[in-house]
Amino acid sequence: MIGLGLIGGSVLRALAAAGHRVLGYDADPATRATARTAAAKAPPAARWQVTATVRDAVARADLAVVAVPLPAVAGVLDQLADAGFSGLVTDVTSVKGPVHQLVGQRLHRLHDRLAGFVGGHPMAGRETSGFAAADPELFADCSWVLCLEPGVTALSDWLELAVLVTGLGARVVPATPEEHDRAVAAVSHVPHLLAAALAATAATDPLAGTLAAGSFRDGTRVAATRPELVAAMCGGNAAAVGPALDAVLTELAGARTALAADDPIAALRTWLTPGCAARTAWPPAPGKPLELPARVETLIRLGRAGGWVTAVADDRRTVTGVRPAPVDPD
Amino acid sequence: MIGLGLIGGSVLRALAAAGHRVLGYDADPATRATARTAAAKAPPAARWQVTATVRDAVARADLAVVAVPLPAVAGVLDQLADAGFSGLVTDVTSVKGPVHQLVGQRLHRLHDRLAGFVGGHPMAGRETSGFAAADPELFADCSWVLCLEPGVTALSDWLELAVLVTGLGARVVPATPEEHDRAVAAVSHVPHLLAAALAATAATDPLAGTLAAGSFRDGTRVAATRPELVAAMCGGNAAAVGPALDAVLTELAGARTALAADDPIAALRTWLTPGCAARTAWPPAPGKPLELPARVETLIRLGRAGGWVTAVADDRRTVTGVRPAPVDPD
Repeated sequence: MIGLGLIGGSVLRALAAAGHRVLGYDADPATRATARTAAAKAPPAARWQVTATVRDAVARADLAVVAVPLPAVAGVLDQLADAGFSGLVTDVTSVKGPVHQLVGQRLHRLHDRLAGFVGGHPMAGRETSGFAAADPELFADCSWVLCLEPGVTALSDWLELAVLVTGLGARVVPATPEEHDRAVAAVSHVPHLLAAALAATAATDPLAGTLAAGSFRDGTRVAATRPELVAAMCGGNAAAVGPALDAVLTELAGARTALAADDPIAALRTWLTPGCAARTAWPPAPGKPLELPARVETLIRLGRAGGWVTAVADDRRTVTGVRPAPVDPD
Repeated sequence: MIGLGLIGGSVLRALAAAGHRVLGYDADPATRATARTAAAKAPPAARWQVTATVRDAVARADLAVVAVPLPAVAGVLDQLADAGFSGLVTDVTSVKGPVHQLVGQRLHRLHDRLAGFVGGHPMAGRETSGFAAADPELFADCSWVLCLEPGVTALSDWLELAVLVTGLGARVVPATPEEHDRAVAAVSHVPHLLAAALAATAATDPLAGTLAAGSFRDGTRVAATRPELVAAMCGGNAAAVGPALDAVLTELAGARTALAADDPIAALRTWLTPGCAARTAWPPAPGKPLELPARVETLIRLGRAGGWVTAVADDRRTVTGVRPAPVDPD
């Protein structure tokens, strides 16, 4: 495990708790010390080791999990190549296209050695950060994207990781890097921009700040996140966030038109109805489990339909998939 | 108390619990039955009566509280006039300009009889609704606007209501109807529109729905509110909501520009900083209590600065006011 922040630390704890042998490294000595102290307090069967270098962490590893912010990913990939790492690599970064590009650019160095790369993204976040906030239960029932690209991803690598991740209780969502980046732009990155815009606008009127209650509190909660984190997340996915923001702006132009209508109440009622139906139907309820062939195209189709994988068969020829249950129109 | 929904029912319960003699009426017989049954179960010292008509409810009342949706307010004001009510009237509607207009249009009928009208708006809402969800503690530490207009509002009426409302543990925020409507457009009505736009946009992609987590959940929570309620609230305040939405759209245009910049991460960091600072400083912490003269202009200035009234002196010549504490720039 390279990087022991909230997500990296939680993956380390979750894997250790699941009985895997885990070694962790973080570039920050203080974080390493915290992780070492915590290891000593963990139950003997769920302990981990903290190493002083990336090389030591991956020396005998089958899998390297890169859990550092996007700007640090390239450096860690180089360190893995320098260390002669020949196992499987995954990451937990919130954008996938740029990471796949970085890996692609390094294939000449990693080539013939690296077993493979499968980009990942657990959709688990908290307002807290750092190893001290790490929680082995963070991934229970969370959606964890594992990326697949026809002709690029080795299916066996993907299934290997899917076994590991479903073992932590997460829902493994298959998606291409491009589809992942488009989806998280809409449901994670754009909400951060709306929250910041709302908070900044309301701050111009002290009376508004005093009258603000539940809808403002909820609608702006993520605006308190450190600007450099949100900027790295949204800016690193700018190509997808731009169009996703445009889609919301187009919706809001409809609200602006409704507000100026002769009967704004009737016009707004019509405008509001699809959003209410969508929010009422969310989160999607799991449908019946299905046995599906373990094929790249089948898995991508499952993810595109909003589905996920809950288990991989021992022979790796089928997976158990779940699609969202149909929504009752009432 | 005319109208026994969530807010009306909670005001009724809170006033009864505070030792006031309260009679309630609701146009819906089932709601009246629920309120009657609940009264029988309340402690004897905190009981209320439920009447079959508006006339019976206000026959010997000093104060009538109108707690019905905006479209029903005019009808209730007419019923109060028909009943020959001569006390003080307040309301709890979420827009104040239109209510003050309705009262103004009826002054020829209410004139010489009515002690006065002071528009009110407790900033307390819940996802639940109806008398069954009513809670006498709903207003503890909540901001409760009582409107003031120079040359229109009788200060003695306003202070009378402020005594009552501070007695329920609420923060009494003085504001003109226009300033109230502008403020709630920014912090209550626009957030509902953003939530609906976000939910509707994300719903077009099932993968997005499955990947949506905390920021989407919070940012869209109020989109599940019934469209007719949100439409009445936003559409009834369309004149203020339009410009408030425009202000957010202008902010978001800045985000769109930042996303298209050569260095979107740096540009977004700059763009995100004011919103983060605003959200981190919210909610405002109370400053030191101040004794202020009970004058219309002084009270309006207090509210405009984000302040509120916590108590009214027995002689009604001063109030205890609180302004938000200055924000530490770090």
